[in-house]
Amino acid sequence: MILEHVRPMGGAAVDVHIAEGRISGFTPSTREGPAPLLLPGLIEGHCHLDKTLWGRPWWRNEVGPSLLDRINNEKATRRAIGMDAAREGRALCLAHLAAGTTRLRSHVDIDEESRLSHVEKLLALREEMNGVMEIQLVAFPQSGICRMPGVEEWLDEALRIGCDVMGGLDPSLIDRDPVRHLDIVFKLAARHGKPVDIHLHEAGELGAFSMELIAERTRALGMQGRVVISHGFSLGDVTGARLDGLLAMLAEAEVAICTSVPPSRAVPPLKRARELGVTLFAGNDNIRDTWSPHNAPDMLARAAMVALKYELRRDEDVALALDCVTVESARACGFADYGLAVGARADLVVVDAATVAEAVITRFAPLKVISHGIVVGGAGT
Amino acid sequence: MILEHVRPMGGAAVDVHIAEGRISGFTPSTREGPAPLLLPGLIEGHCHLDKTLWGRPWWRNEVGPSLLDRINNEKATRRAIGMDAAREGRALCLAHLAAGTTRLRSHVDIDEESRLSHVEKLLALREEMNGVMEIQLVAFPQSGICRMPGVEEWLDEALRIGCDVMGGLDPSLIDRDPVRHLDIVFKLAARHGKPVDIHLHEAGELGAFSMELIAERTRALGMQGRVVISHGFSLGDVTGARLDGLLAMLAEAEVAICTSVPPSRAVPPLKRARELGVTLFAGNDNIRDTWSPHNAPDMLARAAMVALKYELRRDEDVALALDCVTVESARACGFADYGLAVGARADLVVVDAATVAEAVITRFAPLKVISHGIVVGGAGT
Repeated sequence: MILEHVRPMGGAAVDVHIAEGRISGFTPSTREGPAPLLLPGLIEGHCHLDKTLWGRPWWRNEVGPSLLDRINNEKATRRAIGMDAAREGRALCLAHLAAGTTRLRSHVDIDEESRLSHVEKLLALREEMNGVMEIQLVAFPQSGICRMPGVEEWLDEALRIGCDVMGGLDPSLIDRDPVRHLDIVFKLAARHGKPVDIHLHEAGELGAFSMELIAERTRALGMQGRVVISHGFSLGDVTGARLDGLLAMLAEAEVAICTSVPPSRAVPPLKRARELGVTLFAGNDNIRDTWSPHNAPDMLARAAMVALKYELRRDEDVALALDCVTVESARACGFADYGLAVGARADLVVVDAATVAEAVITRFAPLKVISHGIVVGGAGT
Repeated sequence: MILEHVRPMGGAAVDVHIAEGRISGFTPSTREGPAPLLLPGLIEGHCHLDKTLWGRPWWRNEVGPSLLDRINNEKATRRAIGMDAAREGRALCLAHLAAGTTRLRSHVDIDEESRLSHVEKLLALREEMNGVMEIQLVAFPQSGICRMPGVEEWLDEALRIGCDVMGGLDPSLIDRDPVRHLDIVFKLAARHGKPVDIHLHEAGELGAFSMELIAERTRALGMQGRVVISHGFSLGDVTGARLDGLLAMLAEAEVAICTSVPPSRAVPPLKRARELGVTLFAGNDNIRDTWSPHNAPDMLARAAMVALKYELRRDEDVALALDCVTVESARACGFADYGLAVGARADLVVVDAATVAEAVITRFAPLKVISHGIVVGGAGT
């Protein structure tokens, strides 16, 4: 298969040769005239396949304001409207794929109500999507570990039966015991040889302290390059030398940061993180679920929000926002064989745009989406 | 003309009777089955028709980082690519109209380079759009007043020949003389009996001081209800009693706030403003121009950004975000005959949505757009 006359990242027009699902070579295009833009398959760095209401009729959100309201409301709604992690997750995956996302990391609730039922359904969905979309599943203790009898054992079992990543959540604010929570998270990760991805909403110095504990454990276990902190809001709260010190610590431990760039609060600074060697990438987090009606399975839209959040306006700056849903995500999440290079898996998105910035800002539906060397979507199919 | 079987703001289904461009009555719908949502025509509270590159081929942004870089780059680009305020402004108006916006406030540059040329072109466009879209033009000193010989006279002339509103811009940071700048702004407004809309990016206590000067002049001239501060970022910077004091002062002077809800910085607080009686509404500001590639002529999208910025998630809270591009804008800008009421002008948007929140979040293209009682757009036309 040859994908003719496309401009990788806006460069000179080429034909892309694809064999056995991989990029086997590039040759100069022999056709005249304007060529569309070629991007690597987009990556969703943080979502919740088992929570979404995407594809369902509108759900009226009347939930109360507290975190506990939201957690309890989700459980009640799940029962009331008969949610199914596999069905909703599939709808979200297919919408993501149509918009050019070929790889995705999803957290999966493990609590006293779901136990392993979401994990089992999403492991089956991951298998079903195999060869079309690469899915990483994070065993996620949405209601804490220490405070919930049984959760530690279910997390252990989730990793044993196939979850790709060990999750965690606000070790002080949820489990009220940061050392005990994190020790369990890293113990289970080490036991199964799996990487770690911890939700850390904790603000200011509390979140900074949790980061220190995470970096210490990452170094102690030799897990450099295999740990992600999702959100890491405290890096948006501290400033100056304290911020730089934390970033240097994360760079040294090779701990990456995933942000959903919420417009409503300060987030980890993109440019300073890059300057100090910290990988920062992006994900949606909640997509139209009982927590929030916002966001969409569209990683170009997420990149545009990254650009808005960090005031990226110049074309070359907006391209940094695309990196946050492509190469930076691949590095942080350990997605292999990634990119527009010979030997990489042929996960490709063709967009009607002159520059990377135009693709991010206009967000026209892809002309073509190719995954594993197979055309799976796009306006031209 | 009868618009059959629609649900105003998600209420019971009705038929809307329209005569001579106005809503003449509502009667219960006699049809069965689901009915689409009816919204009042949307309002763009703050844009720059003469700056936009909307509808043009992609323009590569390579501008430098400073305010002066941006101002000078705009002038150079305008000459280099042959921009025309009427042509670009028309493209933006028509795109806005197709997305349901029937009324719009635009600032118009008046500086040493444009002089009155943008004003004259946009006055002609306003005339051309008369009966289809209601346009308010703000005489806007983009490069200051005091520091630019001739600008005061051009502003005076702009109001004389038809601009609807007197503009202003960062009285300390641009003209470096807040009293002199604001005295000219209010003097010209009073001379022509026109309302005021001042761009105020000034942060923290500097912006708060400018607000005090604006409120004093508003009260002294009896201009309560006729003054808008655009951006008002300082209200996102100060907190506690200082914030409440400023909001109470603005409420007493009936000065409204227009925000473009940038994700990148703190903005005036929506709920506290409402609690203390300050009208807060929304606009895009720059839409794909030499200043910024971001934003789009889509006020449902702007309402969604309002909801994201203020963390509005419940359906009834997301409806507050729609208010910021409908009723609140109408009140603040003085758009008359507005709303879903007998006697109001028949500016109507029909959307395939169950609730106001669904319309804001999903942003499906309108089924029908009606302006002045005439169908002007929508997927069903």
